[in-house]
Amino acid sequence: MKPYLPFVLGITQYSPSLRRVFGGGRSISTAANRFRLPPTIRQILSSPDVDQKVEVTGWVKSIRKQKRVAFGVLSDGSSPVGLQTVFREDLGERVKLITNGTSICVRGNVVKSPGSGQDKELLVEEVEILGACDPETYPIQKKTHTPEYLRDYTHLRARTDAIAAMVRLRGHLMREFDRYFENQGFAYAHTPVLTSGDAEGGGEAFRIAPVPPPPQREFFAHPAYLTVSHQLHLEALSNSLGRVYTLSPCFRAETGVTRRHLAEFWMLEAEWNVIPTGEPRAQTAALCDFVEGLVKGGVGDSGIIHGEDVDVLWRHRDSDSAPELERQKRLKALVSAVTTDAPWPKMSYTDAIRELLKSGQKWTFPVRWGSPLQTEHEKWLAENLVGGPLFVTDYPAGIKPFYMRANPPADGEEEVTVGCFDLLVPHAGELVGGSVREERLDVLRASMRSKGMEMDGERYGWYGDLRRFGGAPHVGFGMGFERLVGWVGGIENVRECIPMPRWAGRMEL
Amino acid sequence: MKPYLPFVLGITQYSPSLRRVFGGGRSISTAANRFRLPPTIRQILSSPDVDQKVEVTGWVKSIRKQKRVAFGVLSDGSSPVGLQTVFREDLGERVKLITNGTSICVRGNVVKSPGSGQDKELLVEEVEILGACDPETYPIQKKTHTPEYLRDYTHLRARTDAIAAMVRLRGHLMREFDRYFENQGFAYAHTPVLTSGDAEGGGEAFRIAPVPPPPQREFFAHPAYLTVSHQLHLEALSNSLGRVYTLSPCFRAETGVTRRHLAEFWMLEAEWNVIPTGEPRAQTAALCDFVEGLVKGGVGDSGIIHGEDVDVLWRHRDSDSAPELERQKRLKALVSAVTTDAPWPKMSYTDAIRELLKSGQKWTFPVRWGSPLQTEHEKWLAENLVGGPLFVTDYPAGIKPFYMRANPPADGEEEVTVGCFDLLVPHAGELVGGSVREERLDVLRASMRSKGMEMDGERYGWYGDLRRFGGAPHVGFGMGFERLVGWVGGIENVRECIPMPRWAGRMEL
Repeated sequence: MKPYLPFVLGITQYSPSLRRVFGGGRSISTAANRFRLPPTIRQILSSPDVDQKVEVTGWVKSIRKQKRVAFGVLSDGSSPVGLQTVFREDLGERVKLITNGTSICVRGNVVKSPGSGQDKELLVEEVEILGACDPETYPIQKKTHTPEYLRDYTHLRARTDAIAAMVRLRGHLMREFDRYFENQGFAYAHTPVLTSGDAEGGGEAFRIAPVPPPPQREFFAHPAYLTVSHQLHLEALSNSLGRVYTLSPCFRAETGVTRRHLAEFWMLEAEWNVIPTGEPRAQTAALCDFVEGLVKGGVGDSGIIHGEDVDVLWRHRDSDSAPELERQKRLKALVSAVTTDAPWPKMSYTDAIRELLKSGQKWTFPVRWGSPLQTEHEKWLAENLVGGPLFVTDYPAGIKPFYMRANPPADGEEEVTVGCFDLLVPHAGELVGGSVREERLDVLRASMRSKGMEMDGERYGWYGDLRRFGGAPHVGFGMGFERLVGWVGGIENVRECIPMPRWAGRMEL
Repeated sequence: MKPYLPFVLGITQYSPSLRRVFGGGRSISTAANRFRLPPTIRQILSSPDVDQKVEVTGWVKSIRKQKRVAFGVLSDGSSPVGLQTVFREDLGERVKLITNGTSICVRGNVVKSPGSGQDKELLVEEVEILGACDPETYPIQKKTHTPEYLRDYTHLRARTDAIAAMVRLRGHLMREFDRYFENQGFAYAHTPVLTSGDAEGGGEAFRIAPVPPPPQREFFAHPAYLTVSHQLHLEALSNSLGRVYTLSPCFRAETGVTRRHLAEFWMLEAEWNVIPTGEPRAQTAALCDFVEGLVKGGVGDSGIIHGEDVDVLWRHRDSDSAPELERQKRLKALVSAVTTDAPWPKMSYTDAIRELLKSGQKWTFPVRWGSPLQTEHEKWLAENLVGGPLFVTDYPAGIKPFYMRANPPADGEEEVTVGCFDLLVPHAGELVGGSVREERLDVLRASMRSKGMEMDGERYGWYGDLRRFGGAPHVGFGMGFERLVGWVGGIENVRECIPMPRWAGRMEL
């Protein structure tokens, strides 16, 4: 038997056209040619070659058995589109054993498909059953399952189209964001998950201890917590490295069980030194522009928004999701927001309060300068007033953390405001938050004192050092990665935005 | 004043030559042009433009003041090579205030340098002091500091050349590995840090609890730990998605304080479904080939090994490091190993035992078929027998975890062996370990029982499900990312391979 194209130990040579489709159009380096796995279904389907011999390991999404032939759809997880697979009767009894979920290896020819609905199909010459799947007890049936049901099968739920698309989407977003950061001269940095900080006394951190516990003292000589944000540690690195970012896990022991809360979530965070401007508010505006470029670049210009995974996710409807027409409207607005050349509007907190006051809406929470914006306010601003993403900037210092830089006074501001922004998007709420960081030692010390913290003590002395020893003005932001995934994929519950969600009372696997 | 080239809010247009150097030679997408930060020193130095106006925020690595002029070296963290900066006397008193470590913003012209040692220099037209730095108390002096001293200043130590180079190297390695995985059709997956597993009772896991603790019950309804490996969770995802990998933090509460131990470390782990082969040992060989392609591709073909960060790290010498000639020899061997087309040798555990027995060496630990290889054995195999990277394969089942696939019997094997490998490299020891995973339900059940685990119980039922419901043969591996960084950078202690190290008794920040 002639060896099949894809699986040859060592270096494999492909036809030039098949080579081109590997790696999403990027040319193959020496590296990738040192050893090559067989092409995935995505690679096979996007190859211009017809009549190619292939060998694929995958699992059966569905199979329809007729008298002399059976038609299957094979998935290997690389694409939401399965490989149309034709089993002729001369393959014998084996085909009868193939049911939904079964893992098989097939060898054969990929040819132009005579049927409608697909360009190509695989005419199977050999089939091997790798893993049987009892059709009676298989938890992932053809019918649509509720998200709640699927959370009981976290280890299997990525066999559904929507969860698989979500996992791939996360990886694609990460890759595209990394390209944007690389172009802008950033280093990726691994900041620690274990920290000596307890979320500034917020009381929502997890504490850790070894198992079994050591006789008397702490493992690290003092209490250790799981980080709630990588910002302060990233600031230490940007002090040396200039521009740094990370995508890392964060933890919050929130007992609130809502569709926006996870105990373990991923944050994209960045910090960088800037050129000073005479006007601090211009620095905040530039920060917003950077974030807008990141989101438009990673989601829009990258093509992700027009990709098949986003398409699958928007066609998928949870039991509690909005009516079809409304969803179409939302998707259209999203595509427009991430592909338009028009800048997203920026509005100061003071102006936002003004708009809310004159809106004529009945609010559950009173609108008052100096109070935080509530979800109902943010929704109205993004969904009704603007109808798209909106930066709200320059919040009162009293409702923001100690590290934000104080603004000079401006009209309509009753108290000191800080150079910061929240990016609000329709239906997903706050997606990104960031600020200019207070670089002036004395102002920082006073700001920390006003929040009951001591800059010159043991706990935050290092943070003060970043200003004491040649710190530069710098800015930064944090983006909730699951919120981004939910916004881009039209996913209503954050538990379907991460492969294996953890929240109060619940942790599978 | 004409606006300076780099800092214009919104979209900035650069000369074509400057555009080319951004992003390491990749063309700039629409995305990156939506908003652009000013060029970094790395970008300025690698631009072919001479006589360009620039504006840079950075900190002073060193400054030499003469009567009518001062020469500074400015760093912004983007490159180990600083920007040669010339301050003329007409800049006034301000220059006198600049000391090592001071943050400044400079504007001026980059021109061809008349001096030796650099191609370009910046003639400063304007300078602004952003952050003073007291030269008496600044912890990072010009002299070389010991690693132990610098660990007391974890928040500042990235201002040293070696730590900064290490942080950038980590990011570059991650990026290149991602390209390899992307080319091979892998999805990046975020597996959880919080797990219900306690390292299979190994007693080295951290347990977590919220602060303050809830009245009586566990936060997640059952005990929660920090993961020691992402493998089992990745297997669940590869069961659906085919090919998945992650680079994620892992945790081990080891009290051993050696230069190879961290409590928090990063692991690169991958799992994927394979085409079955008649001979299980061929699958292990293919797995080794994939890993070899990854390492050679990411470290060698990518150019990282010839980059300036690796150069800095190898020129940097810890107090306890090997003599200069020995280090040069090691670097040469490393470059050869990651760039050669010749495959790295593979040797079975059984053959390795044979070689160790006939070596004539005196061993502290006896060499005996069925016992683990000790560090002294691994060192001898990689450094003396092979003089380079070496895959040792097919270890006895008794000394390996439950999930590895049993091999058919072979000559010289006294008991059952499993399809697995360890990649041993000179001076860094075990860099990667991987195996074919046991996909046969009954064999897995028996293997788990033999290690005191119950596949059909509540704890591992999900892992059994991956075989019950259409699992395919699959393989995987894990690479200690800090060990890789240490090997590539010639760094002797793992605490200098991660920005903010944590180990028993010690956690800064």
